[in-house]
Amino acid sequence: MILLEVFVYAGIIAASISGTLVGIQKKLDLFGVVFLAACTALGGGLIRDIILGQTVPNAFAKPQYFIVSTVVSIVTWLFYQRTMQFQSTLIITDAIGLGVFTAVGSYSAIDHGLKGSFLIISMGLITGIGGGIMRDVFAREIPFVFRKEIYAIAAIIGSITILFTHGEFTKLQSLYICFLITTAIRIIAVRYKVNFPIRNVNDNLL
Amino acid sequence: MILLEVFVYAGIIAASISGTLVGIQKKLDLFGVVFLAACTALGGGLIRDIILGQTVPNAFAKPQYFIVSTVVSIVTWLFYQRTMQFQSTLIITDAIGLGVFTAVGSYSAIDHGLKGSFLIISMGLITGIGGGIMRDVFAREIPFVFRKEIYAIAAIIGSITILFTHGEFTKLQSLYICFLITTAIRIIAVRYKVNFPIRNVNDNLL
Amino acid sequence: MILLEVFVYAGIIAASISGTLVGIQKKLDLFGVVFLAACTALGGGLIRDIILGQTVPNAFAKPQYFIVSTVVSIVTWLFYQRTMQFQSTLIITDAIGLGVFTAVGSYSAIDHGLKGSFLIISMGLITGIGGGIMRDVFAREIPFVFRKEIYAIAAIIGSITILFTHGEFTKLQSLYICFLITTAIRIIAVRYKVNFPIRNVNDNLL
Repeated sequence: MILLEVFVYAGIIAASISGTLVGIQKKLDLFGVVFLAACTALGGGLIRDIILGQTVPNAFAKPQYFIVSTVVSIVTWLFYQRTMQFQSTLIITDAIGLGVFTAVGSYSAIDHGLKGSFLIISMGLITGIGGGIMRDVFAREIPFVFRKEIYAIAAIIGSITILFTHGEFTKLQSLYICFLITTAIRIIAVRYKVNFPIRNVNDNLL
Repeated sequence: MILLEVFVYAGIIAASISGTLVGIQKKLDLFGVVFLAACTALGGGLIRDIILGQTVPNAFAKPQYFIVSTVVSIVTWLFYQRTMQFQSTLIITDAIGLGVFTAVGSYSAIDHGLKGSFLIISMGLITGIGGGIMRDVFAREIPFVFRKEIYAIAAIIGSITILFTHGEFTKLQSLYICFLITTAIRIIAVRYKVNFPIRNVNDNLL
Repeated sequence: MILLEVFVYAGIIAASISGTLVGIQKKLDLFGVVFLAACTALGGGLIRDIILGQTVPNAFAKPQYFIVSTVVSIVTWLFYQRTMQFQSTLIITDAIGLGVFTAVGSYSAIDHGLKGSFLIISMGLITGIGGGIMRDVFAREIPFVFRKEIYAIAAIIGSITILFTHGEFTKLQSLYICFLITTAIRIIAVRYKVNFPIRNVNDNLL
């Protein structure tokens, strides 16, 4: 599981950077920036743990996650100009984060002894996108994930793979497959600008 | 309880349509629209279940609710222009939704073995208005229920009837009375444009 | 503990006034104003109780808190013009609220048998600032605590004192020390306009 833990930290790092950048653009003070980074990195797992009734949630039971998020956020804050030059790196790291959080979230439903594909998929989705939604609500934006590109769909398809691989493969293999598929779909969607349809209010579809 | 279940679905349908319309107006993509519809339809019950410590919450334990919400949302999205012609139907369906969610929510406190009128009323209110608040927060609006018309008050009065009918009547009768009163007050308030006072910042009331 | 309970009510009163003033400025109706006041006064504790798995949360188990909040909110609403003349009183009351909520929140983690300084500090912080964050999200503002002044830092420093005083002093003494330090830091920060750094997007720090 060591490699998985590495990916979890990759996800936390990516999400913390994204939260920090939004916080700086919204002119938050340093506390606000660090807090927004932590919400982005840990918010999805927090909501999932609350829904599954896991007390104390991981976000509070594992301070190492928060510490990593805070250090990353402060470094990003200091090196703001340089961070902005690595947009493509950020997109890849963010896609890794989405993949990791989705995989871990889907499996956490199984670990809680829950059955039913709906629960597994929805916990994967909420863990994958919950942090970004929290970030955008606090930054007074309509959540990014509701507006643009194949983001949630990547998490949903990834979660579905868990349904098919669980039991057939080891837990670790199952997590990796979900992670790889989610991340790949997300990167391809950004690369080829694949978007989900938006309904034009004045269109007359039917 | 079959008729009650029919009303629950009426509530889910009404809330899903309202979430979909807001999502389209806010230019969300199809995923965002479907997600916003589900939040509107299931959000109030989700918050109530989290507060009452019911894990897994109904919103995740009963996938049929989500499926109905999603189908309704996609159909509304496809037939957007036509939906807009039925404003008055929507207001009535929405009032039915408020009544159903309030009744079911108030009773869920009793079903959890909780005593005290405050808990019963507040669970009815949160179930009744929580979904709409979640919809408006995600859509970056000040929640509608805080700004206009007799909406929450209808839910509060409805919940109070549960206090008086519980024990005197069967559960089903009690639910119906709450539902009818809440829905009736809401429809009358819309019909006669009854509003709650708003304090003018420059007024000198006292 | 009687004096502590007095301070808890001071905190609820201060937070309710602040919620009411924001609600009036945002043109909410009377229900919205009262609801926003209750969120501001009880929201931090509610989020903490949900995270710690305490069902039913205090906000619902102790109706007297809600009743005080509602009465204060209605009185503030009626005497709006006069309230505005007491800005400096408000700042001090608000600082008292922050101090009380932080102290009570930090200690609630200990009361739940939780160990680890991270949990104690984070529960103090969330209880201290959670209500204000909820108020600002519903009022469609970027949370005040993310943007300005030494607010969260006062709560964090206050919580840290609990770590050192817990076990050395009685519970009540420990709570008072945390309360006094948090409130003092907050008042000094306002008085001398001490702010946390904000990163200028065009600066080139490093």
